[in-house]
Amino acid sequence: MAAAPAGGTAAMSRDAFRAAVTNTLERRLFFVPSFKIYGGVAGLYDYGPPGCAVKANVLASWRQHFVLEEGMLEVDCPCVTPEVVLKASGHVEKFTDLMVKDEKTGSCYRADHLLKDFCKDKLEKDHTLSPEQAEEYNNILAILDDLSAEQLGAKIREFGIVAPDTKNPLSDPYPFNLMFQTSIGPSGLSPGYMRPETAQGIFVNFKDLYYYNGNKLPFAAAQIGQAFRNEISPRQGLLRVREFTLAEIEHFVDPEDKSHPKFGDVSDLEFLMFPREDQMAGKSARRLKIGDAVSEGTVNNETLGYFIGRVYLFLTQLGIDKDRLRFRQHLPNEMAHYAADCWDAEIECSYGWIECVGIADRSAYDLRAHSDKSGEKLEAHEKFAEPREVEKLVITPSKKELGLAFKGNQRMVLEALEAMGETEALDMKAALESKGEVEFKVCTLGKDVTIKKSMVSINIEKKKEHQRKFTPSVIEPSFGIGRIIYCLFEHCFYQRPGKAEDEQLNVFGFPPLVAPIKCTVFPLVKLEKFEVVAKKISKALTAAGVSHIIDMTGNTIGKRYARTDEIGVPLAITVDNTTSVTVRDRDSKDQIRVEVDEVASVVKEVMDGQSTWADIMWRYPAHTASAADEEEAEP
Amino acid sequence: MAAAPAGGTAAMSRDAFRAAVTNTLERRLFFVPSFKIYGGVAGLYDYGPPGCAVKANVLASWRQHFVLEEGMLEVDCPCVTPEVVLKASGHVEKFTDLMVKDEKTGSCYRADHLLKDFCKDKLEKDHTLSPEQAEEYNNILAILDDLSAEQLGAKIREFGIVAPDTKNPLSDPYPFNLMFQTSIGPSGLSPGYMRPETAQGIFVNFKDLYYYNGNKLPFAAAQIGQAFRNEISPRQGLLRVREFTLAEIEHFVDPEDKSHPKFGDVSDLEFLMFPREDQMAGKSARRLKIGDAVSEGTVNNETLGYFIGRVYLFLTQLGIDKDRLRFRQHLPNEMAHYAADCWDAEIECSYGWIECVGIADRSAYDLRAHSDKSGEKLEAHEKFAEPREVEKLVITPSKKELGLAFKGNQRMVLEALEAMGETEALDMKAALESKGEVEFKVCTLGKDVTIKKSMVSINIEKKKEHQRKFTPSVIEPSFGIGRIIYCLFEHCFYQRPGKAEDEQLNVFGFPPLVAPIKCTVFPLVKLEKFEVVAKKISKALTAAGVSHIIDMTGNTIGKRYARTDEIGVPLAITVDNTTSVTVRDRDSKDQIRVEVDEVASVVKEVMDGQSTWADIMWRYPAHTASAADEEEAEP
Repeated sequence: MAAAPAGGTAAMSRDAFRAAVTNTLERRLFFVPSFKIYGGVAGLYDYGPPGCAVKANVLASWRQHFVLEEGMLEVDCPCVTPEVVLKASGHVEKFTDLMVKDEKTGSCYRADHLLKDFCKDKLEKDHTLSPEQAEEYNNILAILDDLSAEQLGAKIREFGIVAPDTKNPLSDPYPFNLMFQTSIGPSGLSPGYMRPETAQGIFVNFKDLYYYNGNKLPFAAAQIGQAFRNEISPRQGLLRVREFTLAEIEHFVDPEDKSHPKFGDVSDLEFLMFPREDQMAGKSARRLKIGDAVSEGTVNNETLGYFIGRVYLFLTQLGIDKDRLRFRQHLPNEMAHYAADCWDAEIECSYGWIECVGIADRSAYDLRAHSDKSGEKLEAHEKFAEPREVEKLVITPSKKELGLAFKGNQRMVLEALEAMGETEALDMKAALESKGEVEFKVCTLGKDVTIKKSMVSINIEKKKEHQRKFTPSVIEPSFGIGRIIYCLFEHCFYQRPGKAEDEQLNVFGFPPLVAPIKCTVFPLVKLEKFEVVAKKISKALTAAGVSHIIDMTGNTIGKRYARTDEIGVPLAITVDNTTSVTVRDRDSKDQIRVEVDEVASVVKEVMDGQSTWADIMWRYPAHTASAADEEEAEP
Repeated sequence: MAAAPAGGTAAMSRDAFRAAVTNTLERRLFFVPSFKIYGGVAGLYDYGPPGCAVKANVLASWRQHFVLEEGMLEVDCPCVTPEVVLKASGHVEKFTDLMVKDEKTGSCYRADHLLKDFCKDKLEKDHTLSPEQAEEYNNILAILDDLSAEQLGAKIREFGIVAPDTKNPLSDPYPFNLMFQTSIGPSGLSPGYMRPETAQGIFVNFKDLYYYNGNKLPFAAAQIGQAFRNEISPRQGLLRVREFTLAEIEHFVDPEDKSHPKFGDVSDLEFLMFPREDQMAGKSARRLKIGDAVSEGTVNNETLGYFIGRVYLFLTQLGIDKDRLRFRQHLPNEMAHYAADCWDAEIECSYGWIECVGIADRSAYDLRAHSDKSGEKLEAHEKFAEPREVEKLVITPSKKELGLAFKGNQRMVLEALEAMGETEALDMKAALESKGEVEFKVCTLGKDVTIKKSMVSINIEKKKEHQRKFTPSVIEPSFGIGRIIYCLFEHCFYQRPGKAEDEQLNVFGFPPLVAPIKCTVFPLVKLEKFEVVAKKISKALTAAGVSHIIDMTGNTIGKRYARTDEIGVPLAITVDNTTSVTVRDRDSKDQIRVEVDEVASVVKEVMDGQSTWADIMWRYPAHTASAADEEEAEP
């Protein structure tokens, strides 16, 4: 396909552009608010036929690009998840947003949204602001995500922010857990949640998957499925919803070797990156080679860099504009304490830069958390070719002595001694040898106890080891499929002048890979001989597996083009002859003539990506359309 | 592929067979109990890599066979559903099972399961039963599904049935709603449920979908997605689970014309059917032509018959054994009062005959229910080519007279008059003309009132009508994907003797269409020149989109065959030469020799169904394997 002409679209305001896209999407049933006949539910949307087809195409590409090409192990786990799993992962405790309530009506708001709206409003509309005030508001916007409940509450009181709908006073902010809660089984005694991400299903299966992979690292597991977040007050349409499709990869790797054998395949790719330092220095994103970003240490390791490159290829191949795609590194305050590095693929749309894919090196955090909670060892081992001699700290407490000295507290002291790190243990050894006893803090008792020389022996011993056991690190690329699709809609949408004055026709310039319908078949006029040919071509397209629409209505050809351009059909076959037909390209509107018997395979060739429209333009004679037909609009 | 040899499998008991299948499925990670490291949750399972691939293949076939080939409108709606939708559909009130509780521990059981187990146990193990007692137990088993809570409770008390685990007394049976309940949004004021089926998402969108289809009937909408049932005590492994994938079709049709233009494509298909009359007469299922079943009125209409035929084709093409597949008609007591006809595709497995697809003519019930509850008209219209003169009953109550006579009850009387059917109205007209007044039952008042001639005029008028408005009927084929997959596992599984004495090797004889991996590539021995060729072939297979495993381990070829037979890989490529290779068929173990450059396209040809193994056996020279290699088993 030719590149989408910018047309009049570029000149529109963000809001007008968004309204034009959304209007087209809803009118043509790409998506609609769910349960509309009952007034709808905020944050829930249905994909209608063309949206559903785009989604299926995006997921098929994802599976091909990641699961098949990289040999990943795909799994499919339930959405209903027992509480224990999400306690281990930290979601029960920490997966919250801060909420305030209208003290009279009970309506709920996100505390940070209210403060953000207040500051933005002041900055945009209050022309009496002093430079100091403006700076304060700007500063709040910059640190909004870091504010605690107390700090948010203090600002809301300080600025006198009230409930937007009623002007009633607001409660103090308090955390609201974003998981949909339910109860598993009939007893009411087994709380569960709808999973907030698909990743946990992979982590709890680590042992089986590692075995399936022949007990070898690295390997990746992948999962596509629904996830749920009970947002306090969803806004931003398809970008912030209460139920969505995630596609997640958990790539397990030896923490001591994060190289990637195929890194060379992506290292020359160059695209917009926005490293942490540049953000803090107030700079803009800049074009970097991913190979350089890794070798210079901007990106933590090769495997992380490899996935950044693969994500870039995936998104641009779908039709995301590479100039409105950047990889932004998390700032220290955004990143979990255990994460080694984290980059978001952000796509620019009318809502600003939107996080669509997160690519994080989560170290060993998740596997350790589930190991601890379940008591099941989730670890890998590396067998040495030759046994290695290693020095090993051996701490041997004397149960008898500890029992005599600490009685009921014996176990806590014993566990604390065994848990000492190397430095602490060697310090104790030295102290015991010089003084005979030492004060030792036992956290589980909340006090110090006196350890005597007889109670513990501490030694460095030489041992032969045949293998090394360790908890793998995990590198997690996590894709918000609905967000990617919405950004794709915006990036592919454009308008061009229709026949009537001031009329603008809508076009979705989807690449063949994601187009919901690949081609149309129209008899030029209602004539039986043309309808016979149209049906014959339709049959050949079905056999070739090309999804298409056959339109026998008597509408003018211009109307039919306009209707199918609007759902992004790349090619149109017009039957205007019984031996050869016209094939028209959606974006350039160029037309060629192709033999009836050949046309299905020509269309398939372009749809499969084996040829481009430009390629086949050379092979077939051009057809000159009557201008009258082409430019006619929808009534 | 050759047909799966029956081998030793046929001789096994049902339980031993099921144990062998399940053991293989779990060991090779087709599926595992979810959250196993935390002890699992009854009724929740994960699909591991091969299971996930089989599922993806089954869903892709479904989409091709139904959505694409029939031009259906696919939609994708959320699982989280507000209460109002499920009140309209009747699920909030009626989607229940009867439960009893252990009165001391609170453990819950399905009341019918306990009674069923008791009766079966008596019949199997109590050799002192009189013929009368045996008949009573058999009779209970036959009518189990029809028993009310009171009747079930009476039987449980009569037989002295206690809690199976503790022998404690049980509560009376009471209904337990099987939907997972949750709360939408932070207020706690919007109850919601995880959908128990995907169909409702289609019904509430009827108006938009009808418009999308150019306001034309018939059309079908389809949806694939998760559904949830909070079973009281799940048993039967993958067959009764708390979360599962459904694929549902809602085919909307004019209730006055349920013919199907493509019925001729399936009418000659002949397969096992089990009509209602045969079941009640104690007969067995018998082979019937679907064309005859429709023309004789056994199946209610052509569209229902068309879908039965299409379901037969779908299931057998996946690998379901046609001799263990039957279509069983619902008995009158099984069918909802509004349903016109209903047939289940039942597949026989070690658990008995299992309902895997329901194909129901639900008449206008669902659309009417949502129309009534939402106030949105969910109807279709047929424009007449010529206006039609119709005789129409016109009932015109006199508000004034009714108001004087019935005061506060006026509205109820008026509505009852307007709701009269033609016969009732004409009877009233005659009575009023002869006697001047008539007694009239107003249900909403619960009594009769006297209607006088002045209160209502009833006339037959001739009118010209340009169109007809009506609520479409819906024919619903609904597929339990997990159940189909489990039955497929059982139907494809067989064992054959290994090299060691008494050793049995497991094979899944999946057709290429559903096989999780299409082929393997093995260098015969660890030699660099063979590895180079293996990698070259692997690259060609990837380019052709054929999923495969490349196994460079030094295991014997026999071991490698056994391992991949066990996950149902249809073809194996063994690299034993640098110019040509051996290709082996899983089921026949026949081998042929194919040139290295040709092998990927030959494999693709068989996997795409363009050729069978028998076809290509003719084209290439046979290869005689050394018996030692082939029959070797897994250690």
